[in-house]
Amino acid sequence: MPQVSIKQYANIKSPKMVFSEDRLFSPMDVERKIARDLYEAVRDMPIISPHGHTDPSWFSENKNFTNATELFLAPDHYVFRMLYSQGIDLDDLCVSSRTGKPPTDPRKAWQTFAKNFYLMRGTASHIWLNHVFAEVFGFDIILDEHSADFYYDAINETLAQDNFKPRALFERFNIEVISTTESPIDELNHHKAILNSGWNGRIISAYRPDNVVDAEHENFYNDLPVFGELSGEDLGDFKSYLRAHQNRRAYFKSTGVTSSDHGHPTAQTADLSGAQADALYQKILTKKHDAKDASLFRAQMLTEFAKMSLEDGLVLQIHAGAYRNHNKKLFDKYGRDKGGDHPSPTDYIYSLKPLLDRFGNEKDLSIILFTLDETTYARELGPMAGHYPALKLGPAWWFNDCPEGMLKFRENITPSAGFYNTIGFNDDTRAFLSIPARHDMARRIDARYLASLVASHRLNMDEAHEIISDLTYKLPKAAYKL
Amino acid sequence: MPQVSIKQYANIKSPKMVFSEDRLFSPMDVERKIARDLYEAVRDMPIISPHGHTDPSWFSENKNFTNATELFLAPDHYVFRMLYSQGIDLDDLCVSSRTGKPPTDPRKAWQTFAKNFYLMRGTASHIWLNHVFAEVFGFDIILDEHSADFYYDAINETLAQDNFKPRALFERFNIEVISTTESPIDELNHHKAILNSGWNGRIISAYRPDNVVDAEHENFYNDLPVFGELSGEDLGDFKSYLRAHQNRRAYFKSTGVTSSDHGHPTAQTADLSGAQADALYQKILTKKHDAKDASLFRAQMLTEFAKMSLEDGLVLQIHAGAYRNHNKKLFDKYGRDKGGDHPSPTDYIYSLKPLLDRFGNEKDLSIILFTLDETTYARELGPMAGHYPALKLGPAWWFNDCPEGMLKFRENITPSAGFYNTIGFNDDTRAFLSIPARHDMARRIDARYLASLVASHRLNMDEAHEIISDLTYKLPKAAYKL
Amino acid sequence: MPQVSIKQYANIKSPKMVFSEDRLFSPMDVERKIARDLYEAVRDMPIISPHGHTDPSWFSENKNFTNATELFLAPDHYVFRMLYSQGIDLDDLCVSSRTGKPPTDPRKAWQTFAKNFYLMRGTASHIWLNHVFAEVFGFDIILDEHSADFYYDAINETLAQDNFKPRALFERFNIEVISTTESPIDELNHHKAILNSGWNGRIISAYRPDNVVDAEHENFYNDLPVFGELSGEDLGDFKSYLRAHQNRRAYFKSTGVTSSDHGHPTAQTADLSGAQADALYQKILTKKHDAKDASLFRAQMLTEFAKMSLEDGLVLQIHAGAYRNHNKKLFDKYGRDKGGDHPSPTDYIYSLKPLLDRFGNEKDLSIILFTLDETTYARELGPMAGHYPALKLGPAWWFNDCPEGMLKFRENITPSAGFYNTIGFNDDTRAFLSIPARHDMARRIDARYLASLVASHRLNMDEAHEIISDLTYKLPKAAYKL
Repeated sequence: MPQVSIKQYANIKSPKMVFSEDRLFSPMDVERKIARDLYEAVRDMPIISPHGHTDPSWFSENKNFTNATELFLAPDHYVFRMLYSQGIDLDDLCVSSRTGKPPTDPRKAWQTFAKNFYLMRGTASHIWLNHVFAEVFGFDIILDEHSADFYYDAINETLAQDNFKPRALFERFNIEVISTTESPIDELNHHKAILNSGWNGRIISAYRPDNVVDAEHENFYNDLPVFGELSGEDLGDFKSYLRAHQNRRAYFKSTGVTSSDHGHPTAQTADLSGAQADALYQKILTKKHDAKDASLFRAQMLTEFAKMSLEDGLVLQIHAGAYRNHNKKLFDKYGRDKGGDHPSPTDYIYSLKPLLDRFGNEKDLSIILFTLDETTYARELGPMAGHYPALKLGPAWWFNDCPEGMLKFRENITPSAGFYNTIGFNDDTRAFLSIPARHDMARRIDARYLASLVASHRLNMDEAHEIISDLTYKLPKAAYKL
Repeated sequence: MPQVSIKQYANIKSPKMVFSEDRLFSPMDVERKIARDLYEAVRDMPIISPHGHTDPSWFSENKNFTNATELFLAPDHYVFRMLYSQGIDLDDLCVSSRTGKPPTDPRKAWQTFAKNFYLMRGTASHIWLNHVFAEVFGFDIILDEHSADFYYDAINETLAQDNFKPRALFERFNIEVISTTESPIDELNHHKAILNSGWNGRIISAYRPDNVVDAEHENFYNDLPVFGELSGEDLGDFKSYLRAHQNRRAYFKSTGVTSSDHGHPTAQTADLSGAQADALYQKILTKKHDAKDASLFRAQMLTEFAKMSLEDGLVLQIHAGAYRNHNKKLFDKYGRDKGGDHPSPTDYIYSLKPLLDRFGNEKDLSIILFTLDETTYARELGPMAGHYPALKLGPAWWFNDCPEGMLKFRENITPSAGFYNTIGFNDDTRAFLSIPARHDMARRIDARYLASLVASHRLNMDEAHEIISDLTYKLPKAAYKL
Repeated sequence: MPQVSIKQYANIKSPKMVFSEDRLFSPMDVERKIARDLYEAVRDMPIISPHGHTDPSWFSENKNFTNATELFLAPDHYVFRMLYSQGIDLDDLCVSSRTGKPPTDPRKAWQTFAKNFYLMRGTASHIWLNHVFAEVFGFDIILDEHSADFYYDAINETLAQDNFKPRALFERFNIEVISTTESPIDELNHHKAILNSGWNGRIISAYRPDNVVDAEHENFYNDLPVFGELSGEDLGDFKSYLRAHQNRRAYFKSTGVTSSDHGHPTAQTADLSGAQADALYQKILTKKHDAKDASLFRAQMLTEFAKMSLEDGLVLQIHAGAYRNHNKKLFDKYGRDKGGDHPSPTDYIYSLKPLLDRFGNEKDLSIILFTLDETTYARELGPMAGHYPALKLGPAWWFNDCPEGMLKFRENITPSAGFYNTIGFNDDTRAFLSIPARHDMARRIDARYLASLVASHRLNMDEAHEIISDLTYKLPKAAYKL
């Protein structure tokens, strides 16, 4: 239990939290023993976090986090979407809207969260949060209405300590490298400040150009001139536009960046001629495009980025299939990333063909695919990654980043793509404190899956040890060229 | 073994039936023990049956059921479809066609069924029927060609007893409330007779207007005038048509009804202007519509019904995605509900958007979604129900209402929607005697799933007990406002 | 360990191979014991191989196989696709291109394979190959870079023995009957030579007319005249074209053939009038068709073949949904069957309706469906096969023919179609030596699945024994009329 604040909370009647050393392993004796053994070998390996959404200013400024609500509740759309689904207003949870922070008392928001924390049972967030509560803060009782204030006070007092500042946590978490995600119009000042600070934590960015690629992005026409300015290009034709990307990629690369990232509604790619591409670009520049044109332009750009990757060596990540901002009223009031995003059925076999016809056989190209559509694991992604030299598969993403989803990923992908066309784990999170919890879950589930193969005599222990060590450390480092 | 008839069947060589107290639990020791404990806590809870297709006349007239064939075989499309798939004629199973009952001897039909009962192995019906045979009638040998006559005679003698009349069974089954399903042109006379009978069994209806909403329904143009007459509306324009629904809903509500139900080929919704909707309605009234118009009208009506639900408080059920009457020749000869219905790929993320844009954020609206397309559990339904306040998920439906399907439902839905955006179990059956068997299966599978979470240290026993009790009793009562 | 060559390889440091008698069973004690018992009852049953791609000349000529590379590596696209995905050139694996064999030393290719054999971990090929290495050749160490030469020499020496000739292996493998697959322009000379040879191994063909049905097949216009000649038809109109098929089917049937097989990109069927079909045929004959016409013609032909099957009794197999030759550059250089094939989302419920409207209720017709789209198991194929008398389901195919895929097949199909609308196992392979390994895997997984039903008290052991024996032997013989 946390030492701080404990006296005033002597008689809390919340039940004990479950937090077993064997959590998430198969409860079957023979498998659990194997899983323990495999997990033990990788539990203390450094964390490689090659894709995520932490805020680089945390590490450049190294200020203390403020309070439990600001850290755990207000920014975590995994959590507040579930509360929202049960009729709780986002305002009551301190979630910012387009007009700013609501005037909600953060303690009151925390109490609402605590009282409804039972709604998270069975979800990945339930595991991550309990992990953080137990491992980082030392709680051993459940978060509920009775323990709400105790949690709130204890967390806040802990967060105020020097050894809970971002850099101290980064080191305590044994993170070897972490990648944030920035747009081409970001100057990466925080990253540069970190580089120049003398601190040797490795914080790099990833090149995420959606805001200057997707004509339907709300910031597209605002950001495009800035993009031109920063890249020294007039953007008058498609060639200049491509050069602008090349320039900004080179700038990103100069700060240590090794990857680009592309969040598209679909996996559609295209391979237009230069003239066709330029004509399309002009339509978009002059706002004479329709939805189909915007889609085709995004599709063409994936192929262009593959070409650039071949040239500059950045690894190409495709995060396809999120139907973002599905809840119109919520989006209008609260803006992006407020829980109104959902998976959508996503095609890969037809969509990626234009790109693969050009570059699929390139050994030196590394395209990492992610999907929200788990029905494509066995049907399309496994077989494709198990054939094309340029394709690798990112781990179970977002809604699938839960024990069930991770197991499905391995069970559906491995038969056709094996282990070595996958790239280990991504935490993909903005919840910094949950990073060890997420990597721990991934290691446990890999151990569980491998244990099932060993226990059914498909692998021996040496093979399983080699694989889990590769999945934990070698593969992500190699796949992202870290 | 049944006491009746037993002497004449002393030497039947059919093997013993399997009917273990641990059936359907995980055979893994640690999980089975937990599951037993959880199941024990809910096994005797009253049955809440908020959606189904029992015949209200059974309870108003309270006559004895006639014989085994009429009770178990002729009306159960789960059973006779399987026999039909192996080349057995429906006529030989006493299934009624459009021209009425075939002249088949019911005993002979039963013998055919018994001889082929092995075809049901591995299906849910195999479990349900064995449960009924063992628990309701006391059989302990398998139904096969050797035991066919013994079963037939013993069941018929039992059914003739007073304590096997519908009301007696209702009470013995510990049913707290059951909902049947009727169309707007039904006067609910049986329900009213029950209400006035002094018997305190709670039998309510649900408002199922497909026959006056779906212009492709074979009874649409016959039923529409009756609908107008009963509602006191001339149905001359869309407004009058909507008022007719409001009137009939009010009438249904006055008899205790708490829900409407909509069985649509897709989940398509629409949000037309008043003028557009009226124009579409006129096309349909005058039979100038095509298939697309009929589909759009159904889509628009789902949104209209959501609006009515907000006003009158009826819970809105959507059963989407059945491709009904797929077997043309069978439909032509035998009519509806003869096993020729199949699941079809069903979209929710695009289809529901028009309705959700209007009403998705309404906390006081309760839309319960069902699907036959289990690939949408993790990809669409879980994430959507885990976000929209108006959405809840009904249990695994029809072809998915089997141990495997129920487990998939929990494993795929819980990570994104938790337990509390689901609504417990529906038996959805016209097979009255199987109702306890179906609820028993649901309770066992929930116990099994929760046991797996406890055994992998994701929940403690107190949490699991609270959840299974909520799933069994509290959630269905609350979701259906019972 | 192989006796040959062993002396010179005394000090190989490769680890021991895992090859347990309990492999692939559930590691759960109670289930494993049941599975062992069930498997034991069928392990030595004869192999029925009613669909596959072995080369009939092996059995007519009965020559020794040449070397390990030619036998295991160069022809096995399951294996070399995985190696290719990791950047290894097909030329380095002795894979033939359109211009013939590459000048690669087969031993060197084998070494490359051995060094990268770890890539296959977790795949079905890993199990099959280890089975062959252990059972057929007696290896007990893993294939890796250290054991590469030992394996190569020992395999080659073994293959040179008389008792490793194709017919000897056929007998040793206890194969009762095997079907190859030939096109209508094949004269089946090898099959006839076998029939006339006095050897009593039963090697039959299957009628696979894709090359004279699919206008998009690269050989269509070359093969059509040969087809006309062999069938004695001028092919001038659709009726003559149909007669040509009837003639060739009759010829195939006269050599013992019992089935036709159709590998279509989709499951689309059509039911055109005679005039429409003839007009379409003329378009194709005169190369005035487009892709849609080619597709419609294939669709129509499935219905025509169903009609022929009703007449001549050949079982109709449909292998739908492979996107073949997806990798354009690879196809251009290496041709067909080089690993560039992938599953694609495949519809059945709409696609098969035209055919089923005509013939779905025919008890004497046997259509065996295969899919690469495992999302259709529970949603479409199980329910359809559990209703239509004419439909049966083939086993998990190709990418799904792995322990995970086979289990998914049973778990998703059985609840709606039971066991008796499935037809047992197909190995579907050109890898002759792996046939016992593949059937062994299928028997083990069926035992595993049945054990799970017995252990959760859904079946008794007698029922499970009857089922596994039917799945192994009776059902495939009956389904293929062997």
